Amino acid sequence: MPAPLGNALIGQSGGPTAVINQSLVGVIEGCLRSDRVRGVYGAIHGVKGVLGEEMIDLGKESAAILEGVANTPCAALRSVRMKPTEEECGRMLEVFEAHDIRYFFYIGGNDTAETALILNQMAVERSYDVRLFHVPKTIDNDLCVTDHCPGYGSAARFVASALMGDNEDNRSLGGIKIDVIMGRHAGWLTAASTLAKVHDEDGPHLVYVPEQAFDLELFGEQVEEVYSALGRCVIAVSEGIHNAEGQVLLESQETDSHGNIQLSGTGALGDFLAGYLKERLEKNTRIRADTFGYLQRSFAECVSEIDAHEAREVGRTAARIATSDEYQQGSIIIRREEDPSYRAVYEVTELENVAKVTKVMPEQYLLDHGRIAEEFQDYARPLVGTLRRPMHLSDHPIAR
Amino acid sequence: MPAPLGNALIGQSGGPTAVINQSLVGVIEGCLRSDRVRGVYGAIHGVKGVLGEEMIDLGKESAAILEGVANTPCAALRSVRMKPTEEECGRMLEVFEAHDIRYFFYIGGNDTAETALILNQMAVERSYDVRLFHVPKTIDNDLCVTDHCPGYGSAARFVASALMGDNEDNRSLGGIKIDVIMGRHAGWLTAASTLAKVHDEDGPHLVYVPEQAFDLELFGEQVEEVYSALGRCVIAVSEGIHNAEGQVLLESQETDSHGNIQLSGTGALGDFLAGYLKERLEKNTRIRADTFGYLQRSFAECVSEIDAHEAREVGRTAARIATSDEYQQGSIIIRREEDPSYRAVYEVTELENVAKVTKVMPEQYLLDHGRIAEEFQDYARPLVGTLRRPMHLSDHPIAR
Repeated sequence: MPAPLGNALIGQSGGPTAVINQSLVGVIEGCLRSDRVRGVYGAIHGVKGVLGEEMIDLGKESAAILEGVANTPCAALRSVRMKPTEEECGRMLEVFEAHDIRYFFYIGGNDTAETALILNQMAVERSYDVRLFHVPKTIDNDLCVTDHCPGYGSAARFVASALMGDNEDNRSLGGIKIDVIMGRHAGWLTAASTLAKVHDEDGPHLVYVPEQAFDLELFGEQVEEVYSALGRCVIAVSEGIHNAEGQVLLESQETDSHGNIQLSGTGALGDFLAGYLKERLEKNTRIRADTFGYLQRSFAECVSEIDAHEAREVGRTAARIATSDEYQQGSIIIRREEDPSYRAVYEVTELENVAKVTKVMPEQYLLDHGRIAEEFQDYARPLVGTLRRPMHLSDHPIAR
Repeated sequence: MPAPLGNALIGQSGGPTAVINQSLVGVIEGCLRSDRVRGVYGAIHGVKGVLGEEMIDLGKESAAILEGVANTPCAALRSVRMKPTEEECGRMLEVFEAHDIRYFFYIGGNDTAETALILNQMAVERSYDVRLFHVPKTIDNDLCVTDHCPGYGSAARFVASALMGDNEDNRSLGGIKIDVIMGRHAGWLTAASTLAKVHDEDGPHLVYVPEQAFDLELFGEQVEEVYSALGRCVIAVSEGIHNAEGQVLLESQETDSHGNIQLSGTGALGDFLAGYLKERLEKNTRIRADTFGYLQRSFAECVSEIDAHEAREVGRTAARIATSDEYQQGSIIIRREEDPSYRAVYEVTELENVAKVTKVMPEQYLLDHGRIAEEFQDYARPLVGTLRRPMHLSDHPIAR
């Protein structure tokens, strides 16, 4: 079916990333290049902006502003966490029709892909010709089919760099340090805490991800073991760790309309684990917990160059494929060509393959409780770029 | 009194910074240049390493290793939080004598300067000729006499950059965000949260520092006011905020041997303030709190170039002045020459002027409850270097 002639609309959804605006600008650039697209619009706060007809003209922005926006973290169009009802989806299609929207690009994670899928099904039923494309972004790296997700490399770079510094901090003063890292169901980001390790004794010494059932008692034993060997211990923990029955350790009762529980934006899990260790260990043991929180997805000074580049290309690819005659809907994926070195290729898969499903870390990246395999590092290193190498003194002793 | 011939010993103390090793390497470089210094030693874990005679030979390190160490965050010699007793000070002087230590450089904050002062007084009493110098470092920027402290510029750059990203995050999804920033008695670092503000509506919208009595009720009113005007509110808060009676809002019972209460390494204050606002505001208001924790002092990817340079120069100056014939003890200070643009000059003041005392923000940097004056930004901007400017879309509306 030939690509229709009409306007394009872009929205951003879900938790932002440091490079999500690269994808936005990539889509705009791709649309401006196509002879099928008349106007390029943006929806303020995603589906909410469509429903309220709060839209802006992105075609009027100068190249200088677009470049500045691409390098600004978080959603320039503003974001939303909202799963539209069937009625709302119908209303959105009416807005599309009223504004001759023939292309809708929705930048987000698997919930966002689900919204695009539902809209697409309804558009097909109503025979309204609109191309619906999901443009992937998530620091969680948990989308299916794609090798990895735009946004992950930068968040992983932040976490790796943070742990490098925090390990040096722990080496300076000793004691036990817990770092709580984002990740509801998948441990990709928490596992990235290991990427800047250089010396044998560098932390994190223990890493707990949601893919493995978390055993509090075993955790305590493992921390004690490291602490008694090194006089210190750095621990990286996913906010979504849960026990063998699948219950997350600590959770609030707050959920969004996709049914996701709030885990971030509170220090509760770190404080709970620190409290548990305080009871177990000697009275004056120095135990601290930090929860990295929103810095992981919004810190612009630690962006991975390759991630920023790929996020832009994914946006451009979405516009190119949507305005070709080949695909009526889809989600952009990154395929990795291993040979001769790391290279990314941009392709498309059907929305059905990405919507709602979560990709967790495969078993070969996990060792036993608290340990990540080196295979994971081979996978993740190209995505974060070259990391700073900490250097230690040689410690030539002076005779007593 | 002519500078003695003998060995130099260096120690690091207190909470580390991202550039504390620049000062360490600066002292080593300065000592290696002097004809008064024979060997250059390092004490592992500061005074603890002196007492236990755990010392290393820094003169054997290659220039490449030293440069790598200078660019590695936190204390390469490892640090300590320990105020030696009078007996321990006596023991330290014995170790000095046994190893012919004639120069002791102690890198740290005002507690560290106090230790140097006590040691110096005892050395004078015992007529042991040793030059005792304090080399300033602290992210808190709370040392007297000096215009600012090495370590502050980098931590301030981290906080300013973090708030820039976090403000964009809050603009993306709305709601209320609380960021808890280090600072026990002084608000210098929390005030730095304002340095990357560009647009009128950029956060942080409210900033609470220990210099002003914190009024919980007024805080709630101020947050409500901003939130009802903008649909969002970003708040920066020092961990050491306290009420009019001087009681800190939340504290653990843990103290170090200098009598300092543990405030960092827990999310308790942020969670408390978020909980307070949740009770005040409408049920589904999105309220989150992050506690920046140890990243502020250990994150190597966001170092201020000017801060790194000054930290190195402060170390070099300490060695140069100590090995001159002029001063028997002292603390290095930075004087700011305003004309024609920012320039730092390195000088010395007596230990008595720095030991134990805290410099809080002067009144002209503070407006009413929750607001920082622009004069503070003029003071702090040269110290953090050029910050990334967030760019927003022009939001040209599409007619409904």
